[in-house]
Amino acid sequence: MLAVHLESNRVEVRRVPKPRRPERFSLIRLLAAGICNTDLELLRGYYGFRGRPGHEFIGEVVESDSPSLRGKRVAGEINLSCNACDWCRRGLGRHCPNRSVLGIVRHPGAFAEFLTLPDRNLHPIPSSIPTHHAVFAEPLAAACEILEQVSIPARAPVAILGDGKLGLLIAQVLHAHGAAVCLYGRHRDKLNIARRAGVTSSLLPKKLPQAEFDFVVDATGSAFGLSAATTMVRPRGTVIMKSTIHDAVSINTAPIIVNEITLVGSRCGRFQPALRLLRAGTIQLDPMLSDSYALHRAAKAFARASEKGVLKVILVP
Amino acid sequence: MLAVHLESNRVEVRRVPKPRRPERFSLIRLLAAGICNTDLELLRGYYGFRGRPGHEFIGEVVESDSPSLRGKRVAGEINLSCNACDWCRRGLGRHCPNRSVLGIVRHPGAFAEFLTLPDRNLHPIPSSIPTHHAVFAEPLAAACEILEQVSIPARAPVAILGDGKLGLLIAQVLHAHGAAVCLYGRHRDKLNIARRAGVTSSLLPKKLPQAEFDFVVDATGSAFGLSAATTMVRPRGTVIMKSTIHDAVSINTAPIIVNEITLVGSRCGRFQPALRLLRAGTIQLDPMLSDSYALHRAAKAFARASEKGVLKVILVP
Repeated sequence: MLAVHLESNRVEVRRVPKPRRPERFSLIRLLAAGICNTDLELLRGYYGFRGRPGHEFIGEVVESDSPSLRGKRVAGEINLSCNACDWCRRGLGRHCPNRSVLGIVRHPGAFAEFLTLPDRNLHPIPSSIPTHHAVFAEPLAAACEILEQVSIPARAPVAILGDGKLGLLIAQVLHAHGAAVCLYGRHRDKLNIARRAGVTSSLLPKKLPQAEFDFVVDATGSAFGLSAATTMVRPRGTVIMKSTIHDAVSINTAPIIVNEITLVGSRCGRFQPALRLLRAGTIQLDPMLSDSYALHRAAKAFARASEKGVLKVILVP
Repeated sequence: MLAVHLESNRVEVRRVPKPRRPERFSLIRLLAAGICNTDLELLRGYYGFRGRPGHEFIGEVVESDSPSLRGKRVAGEINLSCNACDWCRRGLGRHCPNRSVLGIVRHPGAFAEFLTLPDRNLHPIPSSIPTHHAVFAEPLAAACEILEQVSIPARAPVAILGDGKLGLLIAQVLHAHGAAVCLYGRHRDKLNIARRAGVTSSLLPKKLPQAEFDFVVDATGSAFGLSAATTMVRPRGTVIMKSTIHDAVSINTAPIIVNEITLVGSRCGRFQPALRLLRAGTIQLDPMLSDSYALHRAAKAFARASEKGVLKVILVP
């Protein structure tokens, strides 16, 4: 089968054997996979990564011990947890210390014609959700994770910093939740996507609003975002950290302490809330799809996904 | 009257007029005042401070509109809030944007023979609490503030980093609360104070425990503390930030996000919980009193408070 391989800052497409599925794993034929900023970072060698990336996907189950999965179109949770430790017992396999992670840590990713995942990671996708929407399940789950961690009241003033893929999803999720969302970004065209979805959106002003929001989400992907968030949030307010940054971030902790701000690190989430939103058609996804490439053109797809102004690029077999 | 004045890194004692109390303020004769790390920072010119410091004090009310205060020995909350804004209405005058702060922001401090504070800031001290214990009310309230912000279950594993004055108070408060506290520090004699109070205490090991605590309190006063805390806390755990640091802190945000850690900035607190602990005699304070100086020897007192290994130094009139 064809499979993408990252090594030494290069994207290769290799012909490799089809994977064999262990017991209680399904073998899945790829239908579509999304390129995420994390994949671009893996390409740049973060985490010393070398191997097959891809963790946002939709596929069809072609082999499985579970009759309820066979032949089904599925999305898959990315953490392969041990199912035995305290974390797993508490339903937090996403934090299992023994976990591997699809396309990131010790489990070959979804940028291939076939992949395997444990049956219990898989979620059948209702036929009403088209594949090119369903492929957003994983990043949408990451956006929904905020509401699993932090209780945001209806009409609470929420600022979101960053109009990239994740920022646009978060803005729409929190808007649908009923918060008074204001999305700040640097790109008129991206802000317009949120605006058309009903979200108040604004170019980042030179002088940021100070101490105005009960909640601020940093989805800038840059060190700027965290500093800005700590000044925009009200005393006793909450900053949600969604920007993975690989250099050390320099931050002034004094306002965090004086204003008793809470910072909450937030990563990936359960798929159920995301699938509910996809089924309801609540989230505007079509304007977020920038391009689609066949798997054998993965190098081009990665290059395209790295371009300024580009949102989601998907790979299809 | 005698009053301490800080300017250009110098401690002066000046003879100045006794302050006049505005309506609904009490005039208070100083009985004892504690030198806090913040005072040492004000001396070094942080916040561009110039003026009369001192925010930990016990005094006797000599003039007041309130008969219930006249002649009483009192402690005083340090934030002079407007009592009209949203924050004040919510009982969070500590975050009032219009506030001045005793001995820190636009209100002359307690290092003087007399000071003034609004009547509603004052708490009469029961006669069972000696003045040299009551003078800990303010820093003890700052330690208690953690329990107002974060729900820490009984027997929860809690690490406290830093065996300075605040760390020792926090360790005792959380131990009294029923948490399984482990205090880490660099000074055997200080750790012994906590140990004698029943708190498990340990010299900082070369290799810090990793992901072992549900809660970690950083009271080191150094940039090291925050980094260490984020690695010692379990996934989904909480780091309480008690170290005010005036330089930007460099921090790796990746583990905070990947492990979905919550960071909570924590400053000063309500006095009631602290006064309850003082009345109950729960907290070992005598070993934390390093020295006492007359007000006119304030320069010596500041020098002594800055010495390595010294804990609380108090000024008496």
